[in-house]
Order: sequence, then C-alpha cells, then structure tokens
Amino acid sequence: MNRPAHGGNLAWAAAKAGCPPSAILDFSASISPFGPPESALAAIQAHLCDLRAYPDPDYQELRAVLGRSHHLPPEWILPGNGSAELLTWAGWDLSQLAETYLVTPAFGDYWRALKAFSVSAIECPLSLASTQESPFQRGADTGTPPLTGETPREGGTAPSQLLAPSVRDIRQILPPAPSRLNRGASALLLNNPHNPTGQLFLRKDIIPYLEQFALVVVDEAFMDFLQPSEEQSLVSAVPEFPNLVVLRSLTKFYSLPGLRLGYCAAHPDRLRQWQQWRDPWPVNALAAAAGVAAVLDTGFQQKTWAWLPPARLQLFEGLAKLPGLRPHAGAANFLLVESDRPSSQLQQKLLSRRQILIRDCLSFPELGERYFRVAVRSPTDNQRLLEGLAEVLSD
Amino acid sequence: MNRPAHGGNLAWAAAKAGCPPSAILDFSASISPFGPPESALAAIQAHLCDLRAYPDPDYQELRAVLGRSHHLPPEWILPGNGSAELLTWAGWDLSQLAETYLVTPAFGDYWRALKAFSVSAIECPLSLASTQESPFQRGADTGTPPLTGETPREGGTAPSQLLAPSVRDIRQILPPAPSRLNRGASALLLNNPHNPTGQLFLRKDIIPYLEQFALVVVDEAFMDFLQPSEEQSLVSAVPEFPNLVVLRSLTKFYSLPGLRLGYCAAHPDRLRQWQQWRDPWPVNALAAAAGVAAVLDTGFQQKTWAWLPPARLQLFEGLAKLPGLRPHAGAANFLLVESDRPSSQLQQKLLSRRQILIRDCLSFPELGERYFRVAVRSPTDNQRLLEGLAEVLSD
Repeated sequence: MNRPAHGGNLAWAAAKAGCPPSAILDFSASISPFGPPESALAAIQAHLCDLRAYPDPDYQELRAVLGRSHHLPPEWILPGNGSAELLTWAGWDLSQLAETYLVTPAFGDYWRALKAFSVSAIECPLSLASTQESPFQRGADTGTPPLTGETPREGGTAPSQLLAPSVRDIRQILPPAPSRLNRGASALLLNNPHNPTGQLFLRKDIIPYLEQFALVVVDEAFMDFLQPSEEQSLVSAVPEFPNLVVLRSLTKFYSLPGLRLGYCAAHPDRLRQWQQWRDPWPVNALAAAAGVAAVLDTGFQQKTWAWLPPARLQLFEGLAKLPGLRPHAGAANFLLVESDRPSSQLQQKLLSRRQILIRDCLSFPELGERYFRVAVRSPTDNQRLLEGLAEVLSD
Repeated sequence: MNRPAHGGNLAWAAAKAGCPPSAILDFSASISPFGPPESALAAIQAHLCDLRAYPDPDYQELRAVLGRSHHLPPEWILPGNGSAELLTWAGWDLSQLAETYLVTPAFGDYWRALKAFSVSAIECPLSLASTQESPFQRGADTGTPPLTGETPREGGTAPSQLLAPSVRDIRQILPPAPSRLNRGASALLLNNPHNPTGQLFLRKDIIPYLEQFALVVVDEAFMDFLQPSEEQSLVSAVPEFPNLVVLRSLTKFYSLPGLRLGYCAAHPDRLRQWQQWRDPWPVNALAAAAGVAAVLDTGFQQKTWAWLPPARLQLFEGLAKLPGLRPHAGAANFLLVESDRPSSQLQQKLLSRRQILIRDCLSFPELGERYFRVAVRSPTDNQRLLEGLAEVLSD
C-alpha cells in the first residue's frame, strides 16, 4: 500500500500498526473530535427512504439552509461532493487564465486540481520563520482588536490567546500588485486559515487583491473553527466580487469526512456554469440531509467553539515543552510542529507503539522531514499524544 | 422550477401534482421497483461510524468485490460518484481525440459531458422504425440462441420473450469502417442497452469496432437487468482492449439513485490517470459500504431477474392495447412508447389526476412530443399506469 498523500488514511495506518482501523487514534486528519453531530446521524436515518429517488438536482433545501447561514440567497451557493469536487471545477476556471498564484506550502489537493487541467502555477512561499517579531502579533496595525487582544475575557478562557500570533500579513507573501502581476489574466488560490501552518489572513488584507486578480479562489475549509467574532471569511464579499469563489467544507468542523460534503459561495452565473459541466447529482441524498441538520445545529457549533481554544492551548504548551519540538501558533484546529527528529520516524514509532497517527509533511516539499501536523483533539486524547511523543523522543 | 432534463425529479413533479414527493408513483426514472436491497440499507446503518473517517482513497474492498463479480482484479475497476461522475472523466479523455461518434437519441448526460470539454460529436441516428423485418429478430444470424429463441423455457416464463425483438444490429447505425472513419483519432460513445429505446447491441457486433476506434466508451447502466445467460456486457473484453471503457451503475438495478454509486472497468493505467485528475474521495463511506452489500446480494439479483420479463410483457401488452400508443420492445427495465397524443399532455394529466409521473422525451430532440418512456414496475403499479393512461386517453 502506498504512503498516503493525505491525512486520515486509516487503512494504511492500521496495516502499519497491526490493528484494526478503528483502533487508531487519528491526529493526522484535522477533524473535530466530537464525531458527527447526533443531529446529522439522525437525519441520515430519517432519510434512508430518500435513496430510492434521485436527489433534487437543485438541492434547494440544502442551498437555502447554507445560504441563510451566510445571509445569501440560495443561488449564490452550490453544494459539492466535498469541497474537493468543487475545487476540480475551480481548477477548470483557473485553467482559462494565464497563471495562478498559489501560497505554498499548499494542500496537496490544490496541486491535483491544478495539474488536472494544466494550470500554470506561480508559488508564493509563506515563510515559516518565527513570526514573533511581526507587528501583526502585537495588535499594532491590524485594526481588529478581538484578534490581537491578549487579555483573557472576564470569567472565562481566552479564545484569542493562540489566535493572535497566528495572524499573518498576506501582503508579505503575494507579489506587490500591479507591478509584477499580469492583470486580467492572473488568478489567486488561497487557503484561509492556511493548511498546514494554521496561519490566518485578515479579510481586509485580502479584499484589495480582489481588485487585482481576474479570479480569486479562497478555500475556507477550516474557517468554521473560528468564532463568529473572529472569523475572517470572504463569503460576505461574494455579492460584490463576481471574480471571487469561496470554498467551504462540512468535513472538518462537523467531523464528517466520510460523508463528502462541501459547498461553494460565488456568483450565480459561475455556479450555473459549473452545474452544466459537472454531473447532475454530485451530493448524495444522505449527505444533503445530514448537511441541512448539521448547519442548523447551533448546539454543536457552540460546543466546538468552547472546546477549541483551551484544548489547542493545552496541546501547544505540551508540545512546546517536549525536547526538539517547536509548535507553530495556529488559528485552526491543528498545529504545525517543527521537529529535530525526522517526522516519519516519529510517525512510525507512535503508530507501532501507541497506535497514534500523526501527519508527516512529506507531501509538502517545503516542509519535508522537519515538520509534522497534529489535530487538536479532546484534552484526554491530546494528553495521550503528548505522552506518546515524550516516550518516542526519549529513545 | 424548470422542467427537468432527467427522469426522477420528484420535487418538480410534486409541485405540479400538488402532493408530497413521496406520493408520486414514479415511472419516469428507470429504477427497479424493489427499493434498495435490505442488505444495502443494513450496511449503511452498520457503517454510520465510518463517517468520522475519510473513505479509503483506494476503495480496496469495494473494488475487490466489484472486480470479483466480473472476474477482474481490483485495479481494473474504479468506483465513482455515480457513473455520471466517471462519464465526466471519459468526456475529458474523449476531448483529446478529434471526434466522438454518438448513437442518437442519446441520454442527456452524454451531451453534458461532451460539451463540458468541447468534444466534437458526430451523431449516428438509431432509426426508430419498426424492427420487425430485421433478420436480427429472427435468430437468423446472431449466433446467440438464448437471445433469439422464441420458445418459452420448460416450466417457466419466457425471459427472452420481449428481448429478441429488441436486439439491434449496430452495424446499421455506425459508419462502415474504415472508409469514413478518421482512424486513430475517432472515438465511440455507446449505450447498451440503449436508453431511451431499450434496444440491445450484441457483444460480438461491437467487438470489431474496438479495432477501429481509438477509444470506445460503453455505458452499460442497464446491463444488470439482463440475466447472465443473456447479457452482452463488454466488461470481459476490457483486458484485451486498453482503448475500452465500460461504465456501470448501481443506481438502476439496486434502486439506489439517491446513493450515487457507479463504476468503470478499464485498463489500470487509464484508471490511475483518472484518479490523479479527480478528487480523492468521490464515493462516500456509506455508498461504498452499501455497494459491497448490494453486489454480494445474489437473492436480490435473482428476484429482479425473475420479476422483469413477465412484468415487462404485462406492461408492453397493456400499452399496445391502448388507443394511439405503440410501445417498442426493449431489453431493459423500461419501455419507449410512441404516442399519437403529445407526451407532455399525457404527462401533465397523469400527474394532476393520478399523481403518476412518466418521462416525456422532450430532452431527446429526435423524439420530442411523439414519445414517452416508462419504467417497468410491479404488476400492481403497472396496472395503475395502464388504467391512468386509459383514462387520460379517453378524454
């Protein structure tokens, strides 16, 4: 079996660990630890009878619910078989332009979608040097106090505590427009928060690029993990910019990677075009029903927002204490960790000794053996990882 | 709401009929009336826990089971999000060739896949004139006695009774090779049994075209409905012909249109290429589990093969007795019917008076208002359709 290019390949990990896939403690896929919402599972059970009919090709109910969650009419939303399926069609749109600027290291599936249609990519490296000295961590000029506040909120944990250092100025990464930019023929493919670094770009910093690029595709697969007061989504900018495509996923936040459900927010003309290209029913009936239930499940959302900041802080601090590991601050539900030991060696030992799977970064050539990525899980699971790492690092 | 281009749009029909979608008696989608196999529903229930992990990107178990059902190794099989998703990638392959020969009238989704990648299509019209006089119905030269036998089998119904007249000589439709054919740069997209006519092409007649076309894509979405002794699948020819792609569907035979599951049999090199283009997990975890269970459900298969020939005969004979209707013999689980009355008028009246949905053929320009298509359902349902038609035809 080939080494997986993506996280979450439990069949591969189980073969390596000599255990059933269900026994693997998976830190490799950046998925919420809360499992699918009960509401989504109940919706699947209630809609089993829908399997004997084709899904509504307009996915009206799902689009209406997703649209309302963003204050957009349904026709500005298009559900897909995971956001990966929508990325395929974004790739086709990108292939009509001369070149696509891509922040690297980039999620492996971006390369798949770009290569499928021979898109010419220009890499914009995101430096992984410590960001401690950047003014963006000090709240000096971001103009968004909740992101940079360093004081814990009254009577509670400080959800922003690990968010502020993860804010990154996109202007340091992208070419200064318009001098180097082929205006009208260049596109931008961006990931916010960025995977695998967890760094967050501010909405106000991205907006000016919408004036300069012919097409901007922003993958916000992890944006749901930021509380509404802190999120930096561009979905609200979609009505103003017909050249903006925002990809969203239900995979990570709702812990539904097996379901395959994502969506796109973009101008209705573009979405109608994609519908004419792709097959008529990309989302199965059970996924459509589960999606409606999940998006309406405000209890699950609140629980997630309450869990993440302290659990991420616990994991960050625990990792920082281990010899030879340097975690990077991140705004999402995972942490990128720099390691003195080869990450594939750590991965192998954690698998065979503890049945714990971490994500090596070999599929990101910019990172290679010096980095690994871990999801934030429950405090108990995080502790198991920290103990496992402590053991294999003491070899 | 727009008039649907496909059958089975129950949301549209329910709005027209003023009833819930579940109240519609659907003859428009050519789906088995037996509902999803219990085995498939049980597999979905048993695998709900799989939703919290990504599907195995190699779909090893599903490919192994599908492969075994065709005596092929797993790597010769690729599952897809319905065969429609695989048709997209077949379309991309077809776009690399100069032209694609297409038997018309053609399933609407073929046009979608061809247009998406600007494939140049050459239409090969399938005449809808009576086939009674063709030697192919008399068993004169087909060399396949089970298909042309006219004697009911000892002690049972005659499964071939309606099959024989539906066999069609593909050599009457395709251009005589090689004279008119751009060898090495032409492709063929074929549907067998053909939708919407139900006509069947013989395997032995298609094989010679594999030598002449650079790529042959055969959609066998309805082939499962033919008993093993009568089927004309080209899957067994795949190992010999790297230029052959066979598309199969679990939608119709297993009554799972809401699940989205199909597969392709083709050379492993081609399938690996498609995997590199498309998103990594096109089949969701529940569909993968249901597919394994369905394909292993020989009881369901036997039940279907026992039901179809007599039910199709009942429907055919009932339709033939109605004034102004002329059903065409068909090898699959549906019948194409020529009508003196406009089919959209019949459709509208059946919907509003009886909540019965038939498939108009307006999306097939060659057929238009003079034809409609009906699925074969249970004897009771078929009778309801015949009574409904008798009523609206007596207006």
